[in-house]
This record gives sequence, structure tokens and C-alpha cells, in this order.
Amino acid sequence: MNQKVIDATVQKALEQFKAIDEKITHYSSIIGLVDWDQKVMAPKKGRSVFAKATGTLRTEVFKLSVSQEMGNLLETLSSQENFKILDGVTKAKVREYKEYYQKSKSIPANLFQEYSILTAQANDAWEEARENNDFAHYLPALEKIVDFKRKFAEIYGYEDHPYDALLDEFEPGLTVKRLDPLFAKLRESSVKLLERIQQYGKPTQVEVFDQSFDIEKQKEFNRFILPIIGFDMEAGRLDETVHPFAQTVNIGDVRLTTRYLEKNVRSALFGTIHEAGHGIYEQHVNPEYEDSVLQSGASFGIHESQSRFLENMVGRSMEFWKFFFPKLQEYFPKQLENVSIEEFYRAVNTVEPSFIRVEADELTYNLHIMLRYEIEKALIGGEIEAKDLPAIWNQKMQDYLGITPSNDTVGVLQDVHWSFGGIGYFPSYSLGNLYAAQILRTIQKDLPDFSQHIESGRFDLIQEWLKENIHQYGRLYTPNELIVRVTGEELNADYLVEYLEKKYARVYGL
Amino acid sequence: MNQKVIDATVQKALEQFKAIDEKITHYSSIIGLVDWDQKVMAPKKGRSVFAKATGTLRTEVFKLSVSQEMGNLLETLSSQENFKILDGVTKAKVREYKEYYQKSKSIPANLFQEYSILTAQANDAWEEARENNDFAHYLPALEKIVDFKRKFAEIYGYEDHPYDALLDEFEPGLTVKRLDPLFAKLRESSVKLLERIQQYGKPTQVEVFDQSFDIEKQKEFNRFILPIIGFDMEAGRLDETVHPFAQTVNIGDVRLTTRYLEKNVRSALFGTIHEAGHGIYEQHVNPEYEDSVLQSGASFGIHESQSRFLENMVGRSMEFWKFFFPKLQEYFPKQLENVSIEEFYRAVNTVEPSFIRVEADELTYNLHIMLRYEIEKALIGGEIEAKDLPAIWNQKMQDYLGITPSNDTVGVLQDVHWSFGGIGYFPSYSLGNLYAAQILRTIQKDLPDFSQHIESGRFDLIQEWLKENIHQYGRLYTPNELIVRVTGEELNADYLVEYLEKKYARVYGL
Repeated sequence: MNQKVIDATVQKALEQFKAIDEKITHYSSIIGLVDWDQKVMAPKKGRSVFAKATGTLRTEVFKLSVSQEMGNLLETLSSQENFKILDGVTKAKVREYKEYYQKSKSIPANLFQEYSILTAQANDAWEEARENNDFAHYLPALEKIVDFKRKFAEIYGYEDHPYDALLDEFEPGLTVKRLDPLFAKLRESSVKLLERIQQYGKPTQVEVFDQSFDIEKQKEFNRFILPIIGFDMEAGRLDETVHPFAQTVNIGDVRLTTRYLEKNVRSALFGTIHEAGHGIYEQHVNPEYEDSVLQSGASFGIHESQSRFLENMVGRSMEFWKFFFPKLQEYFPKQLENVSIEEFYRAVNTVEPSFIRVEADELTYNLHIMLRYEIEKALIGGEIEAKDLPAIWNQKMQDYLGITPSNDTVGVLQDVHWSFGGIGYFPSYSLGNLYAAQILRTIQKDLPDFSQHIESGRFDLIQEWLKENIHQYGRLYTPNELIVRVTGEELNADYLVEYLEKKYARVYGL
Repeated sequence: MNQKVIDATVQKALEQFKAIDEKITHYSSIIGLVDWDQKVMAPKKGRSVFAKATGTLRTEVFKLSVSQEMGNLLETLSSQENFKILDGVTKAKVREYKEYYQKSKSIPANLFQEYSILTAQANDAWEEARENNDFAHYLPALEKIVDFKRKFAEIYGYEDHPYDALLDEFEPGLTVKRLDPLFAKLRESSVKLLERIQQYGKPTQVEVFDQSFDIEKQKEFNRFILPIIGFDMEAGRLDETVHPFAQTVNIGDVRLTTRYLEKNVRSALFGTIHEAGHGIYEQHVNPEYEDSVLQSGASFGIHESQSRFLENMVGRSMEFWKFFFPKLQEYFPKQLENVSIEEFYRAVNTVEPSFIRVEADELTYNLHIMLRYEIEKALIGGEIEAKDLPAIWNQKMQDYLGITPSNDTVGVLQDVHWSFGGIGYFPSYSLGNLYAAQILRTIQKDLPDFSQHIESGRFDLIQEWLKENIHQYGRLYTPNELIVRVTGEELNADYLVEYLEKKYARVYGL
């Protein structure tokens, strides 16, 4: 075959690949919008009918992604001689689709259908079990899901640990071998730090939050801070929902949701900052990746790093409140007139072991994740069985947090993830914290005035740095490539450990 | 061929037809939702990007509708021996798709593409022309559109008048021969009635509307009346927009929009009632037509009859305000304390010739339509040319309404319709009024207490009647079939003429 013939074939494949990528991305962006709509806007009676319509479009996206055409295109473009001549952007796109194609194709159709029906039903079983504190009701479904996931892991393949095959779905390339030492270090230091806080910490005054904060005023304050911290309101929205989330429609349309509680001003406040971290990431993706699979974040973990960086490392810092606390006092003069900024700062950073992950503070949060990670790993590795979970859960809660859940509803039944088959998802949350601390260290070197910027409410240089170094690349790099590129080294738990030590030494006067 | 073989073929075709109908309907319902979203919710910067995504889905719907598969299915199902054994619902679906398929297939692809580009560009030319009062700037595009439409009419085919081929797109089966006498009668009687009102009418007091009405209060009042008049708020929404419309997502999700003006309380009020008429129609469609092309109204004209029936025949009646005026006074005590219900009723029914169609009153509105109908008919018939329009427009305005537009911006340039090729659309508006008056006559016979129901704010029996006789059928019947079925006779202008005579005799003391 001469070079010219190859070129023409590749050229044609590239054009077709671009077209199918665009179509899948367009449909996905529509699905994103309508998902948001159904949660935030749609009237009650239309939702079940509309679910069929979105189901049809979702099926189409799946069919396109695993189509014969896609298979042929991927084969052509990822052949040894062709792949090397592709540009970096196309390589990344081929990588993404190939990953999904191979995984999807590897599962026999009948197995996948059984699994889909199971996870649809498991959600109901889980909801009922949680409501009635009845783990046994959920157990049969959970056992089947674990079986499926064990099978999938074998089918996908792995080098060392079957759990690697599942981790890879959420954090491409991550393995137990890499993760174990990172999490072990974080767990050990967090447990010790928690003990020190409980033994020697100077108590914080959380009574400031035991007051009513007018919801309309909360809304105004949330809308006030969003543009200041870098969220472009002309390229997004902020709405209300019961379970807050961020939904990207496209680079110019990123939708945040939050939940306002009169008796808990922190809920919307830090929820909004958290979702803004996700949202700003997506607003900053290179417009050239529009209409392509790269128009998204690098991984669940990297995405979470951006929300947690903004929520915790920025949003719970003294510098942040030096700027925003006087404004907050203007919105809520009565509630905050006798509160000092020091009291407020320490109150928002209060550490308190609790049963529920999503309500946990910045320190104990990771211990909730460690527990889940260890359980998932042992489940998939076949060392434990689903029926053992309540006992193991409660034991680990006692070991790490020093408390034992009073029942399974606030214990092993609290999270939805396993019911939809999301085993391998939980580590992303703590990975986000690890990445964020490592990124924080780098940004502080690059921007020596980092703290002063925050203190004076100037977030432009910080956001510019994040855009330049992380956000703009969308899904171009794998998470490992990205963190090495940004920080000069692979993920390292030291930064988060040091950050937490230093922060709580300050907060609790250790 | 034996019967058994035929049955199996038809059976298979029916299954495939159901699947493709469902897919097209699902996609159309998604397009409906995202169109609403882009107008009402989407942030500014995302819209142009998202337009590409919806473009992709729209193209898919078009491709499915004119696909080889659709062609084969329609051929099988509409063959003489097969069609007759289909049930009525399937017959109607075949009728709908066949109509669209044949029209779309009859236009050569290159011609259609040229036309699509032209109408996309014409919109800009029209907008600029209107803004700068520069008809000459719009003329070249308009001339080309008229040329295309003349060609399309020849391609589609017609019996008597080329305009019939275009009318048919909006009101299936309607012809110039049927419409001319209806509109002539309406025009002549309206012109005379207008003269009598102007000569002998007792002036109304419109000063009541020259006041400020707090927008938040207006919103509350609009939300207050919607459920009372029959709009199910659990199967719909009410939002704000610059150009109000109703958008159906599905039977359980119908979205109305309205526009609040502090200085014009009538704008949102009657706008909302009008859109509610469209919306209630769609909420009442037989749930069995969900996921099918029949999940919609019978035609533009029939749809408009439902909005105008509710807005004008109900919403501008004395009975309506006997119930609602005391409530409106509670919302706006200061503005309405010295206004009697008689004054208010007469004020909302004030007749005043004006330049702009969308602001016209119930009587002169039809004259705006007559003028457009006559111009369109003569344009397509080749009796006049686009360049003659400003002069003809102004002459007809003088003849029918006794006023001449001061410039083309408030004359021939005011409407968007021709720029998107919607020649044949305008008659729907007056058809709506004609249908509505004929339906009113029938409902008054069937429900002798019609007026008392309205007067006491009980709309359930009226809406039940509309649902039973019209709404539930969705697109099952052609408009002519439907009106004969409901009222026992073909469309007849007498009812609207009599209704207007009687109404304005009362309002103006003639």
C-alpha cells in the first residue's frame, strides 16, 4: 500500500470520526440539558412520559458509540501506523471512544441487559431498605450487583487486582497498587489528627449556625459571590433542587443547583461554592473542544479536585472570609453582629465525627471514603461478601471515627452508589482532595500572592491559572498525565496530609 | 398471495411504523423542550453552541421522516387492500406521515437546500429592514421566497388555485374556493360594524388601563386564574418571555409563557388566557396518543380556535369578569376602586383601528388577516409582485381600517411569517375565530347554563365538553372532519359575524 492510499483512507476515517463524535456530543449535550430540566423545571405529570423520550435518545447515543461504524473507525485510526500520525487532540478522542467501545463490546448483550434491569430495580430496593432500615431487603440485589461487577472486572481484565478494572471506569489508569499507599497514609494521619483535635483542640463555637437565615437573603448572597469567585453568569445559571449538582450543557451553558435551608446557612453556601468549582472548570474548557468528547473534565477525581479546591481550600480559608465575612454580615446583621471573623472561621471548620458522609467536615470526610474503598476492594476481591457489610461498616466507623451508627439507614444504607452499580466511584471524592492539595501547593508557588488575592476578593489570576494549567485541556489528558504536567510529579498524599495538619493546628490551636 | 402472508407483512410493517413514529415523536418532544429552554432559560453564551446540537437532532427527525424505511412502510400501509383494514388511529398516523413524506420528497434536494439557506438569511434581512424602515432591503429575499413558494405550489399540486397547495400545509384540505366566501362575509360585515361603532358607538373608558400595575401582583393574579380556567399546573408551567408562546413537551408537560408590562396589565392577562387555551387543548389529548404523531392539535386553525375561544369568547365576556373582576380588585384595590364592572368590561372590549396586528382588538384583528390573505393569494397567483406590497398594504389598511401606516415598519414589515416562508399561515388566525364562534354556538346548546358556569367560576363542565368533543382527539381527525363532527356542519362564517354583531351592540350600545 502506498502512502497516498493510506492518507486518503485515514482522511476519510477522520472526517467520519469527527462527524460521529459531533453527533454523540450533540446528543449528549441535549441529554444533559433535559436531565437538568427534568430535575429542576419539569412539571410532575410529564416526567415519566418524558423519561421514555430521553431513553430513546440515550439508546441512540449508546448504539452510535458501539456501532459497526465506530468499530471500523477506531480500528483504522488506532492501527499502529495510523495512530502515530494523528494530532494529540484526535489521539485523545480515539483513546476515549476506544476505551468505551471496548468495555461496552466486551460485555455480552444479554448479560448487559440483565444488569441494566437489575440496577433499575435495585434503586427501588435500596430506597425502601434505607427508608425502613432493612438491609436484608437490599441484600439480594446488592449481592447480584457485586456478582456482576466481579464478572465485569474479569471481562475487562486487570493486572494485579480485579478492583483495578472498576476503578479505571472513574479514574482511568488508577490501580489498587497506586491507591493503597496514598489512602493508607491519608487514613492514618487523619485518624491521628482527629484524636488530637478531640483530645487537645480548643472547642469551636458552632452556635452561630443555630439561627434562622432568611432564604431570600441567602439566595441574594449566593448570587453575589458566584461571579466574584469566577463563575460566569452569562454562561450559566443557578437554580434550586433537593440534591444539588452541576450540569454542563456546553461551554457557554453550565447550570448549578443548590439547596437553601433556613436553619442551615452552610448548606447552600458551601454547596454553591462546591458546584461552582465544577462549573468553572467546564466554562473554561478550550472552545476548540466544543462538539467533541473532550468537552468535559479529565476524570471524576480531577473534577472533584476543582470543586473541593474552591469549596474547602479557598472557601473555608481565613483569607476568603476576611473578604466575604463583612459582606455576609451586611446580609445578616442580626445573626452575625456579635460574631467575630475568628469565631466564624473556626465555626465553618469545625470537625465532628458523624454518620453521614455528605454532611461530614473536611477532615473526617476522607475517613468515610477510606471505609468505602476498603469495603469495595475486599468485595470485588472476594475477601468479604455483601451480607457481611453492616458489621464491617460499623466496625470501621468505630475504628476510624470512634462512633458506631445507631442503625443501617445512617450506616451502610446511606449512599445510592452501589445500587446503580457505581462500585469504584467513591475513591474519586478523596482523590479530589488529594489532587486539590497538590495543586494548591503548586499554585501557591506560581502565585506567591495567592492568599492576598483571595483576601482582597480578586479571583481572576487564580482562575486564570486554573484555566491555563487545568481547565482548558478538558478531557485531553488522562488524570495522571495532567497532574504530572501541572505539578511536576505523580499524585502524592503528603500535600493533603500537611495541609490538613497545618489547617487544623490553626483552627484548633494544636 | 394468501391472506396469511399479507397479514404477516402488514403486521411487521405496523410494528416498524409504531417504532419509527415513537422515535420521531420522542425526538420532537425533546426538540420542543429544548426550544422552550433556549428561549426561556438558557444563558446567553450557550445558545449559539446549542443551536448546532438541536440542528443535529432536527436533521435526524427530517431524515427519519423521509427515509427509505418510512417510504416503504407508508407504501405498504397505504396500499388499497392494506389501508382499509387498519384501525382509525393508525389510518390517521399514516395520513399524517404520508402527507409530510410526499411533500418533502417532491422537492428536489438542491432546491430545498437553497430554500433553507434563503429563509435563514431572509430573517436577518427582514429584521434589519423592519428596524430601518427599509422595505427595499428585504425585497430581494422576499421576491425569492415568493418564487420558491410559487414553485413549491406547482410541485405539490392543486385543483383550482396555487395558493391551495400552501394553505394545505397549515389547514389540511382548505382551499381558496372554500375560504373566499367565508372571509368575504367576515370582512364585509366587520368593516360595516367598525363604521357603525365609530359613528354611533358610546365611547368606552380605557383610562383604567393607563395606570401602573405591580408586576409581582400581576404574576400572582395570572397564577391564580390559570387553574380556575382549567390549566393543570401539575402538567405544565407558566414562565416569562418577550414573545409569548405555548410549548408542548408531552401531555403531562405543557409550558406557557407570558410577558408582564407594568404599564399594560392586559398584555399578560389576555396573553396568558390565550396561551392557556392552546395549553389545555394539549393537556387533554388522549393519553393513548402519547408517543405518536397524533399527540398534538388537529391544525393551526383548530388550535387557534381553542386559544381564541378562551381568550375572547370566555375571557372578554361579561360573565367572566363578573367572577374575576372582584378578585382583580382585591389584587389592585387602588387602581380599580372607582371602576365599575360595566366600565371594565367595556374597556377590555374597546375597538380601535391600529397598525399592528398583534395588538389589534377582537373585531379589527380579522381585518388585519383579510388584508394578508388577499395579498398572499394574489402573490402566489401571480397577480401582484412583492415590490407592489407596500402600496397595496397601505391601500387595504385604508379601505378596511380607515388608517394608513405612517411607515413600512408598522405596515408591511411588521410580521416575521413571510421571512421564514410561512405563506399560508395567516388565515389560521381568523379561521381560529370562525371555528371558535361555531363551537361556542354548539357548546351553548349542549350546556344551557354555559354563561352561569363562567359567572360562578366553574369551568369544569366547559373544559370537560371541550375535552370530550375536541381536545381528546388530538390530531386524529382533519380539521374539517372535526368541525363537522363537533358542530354538525362545515365551517360557516355566520356564527362569528353574529357573535361580533351581538357583542359590540352590547359593548357600544348600538
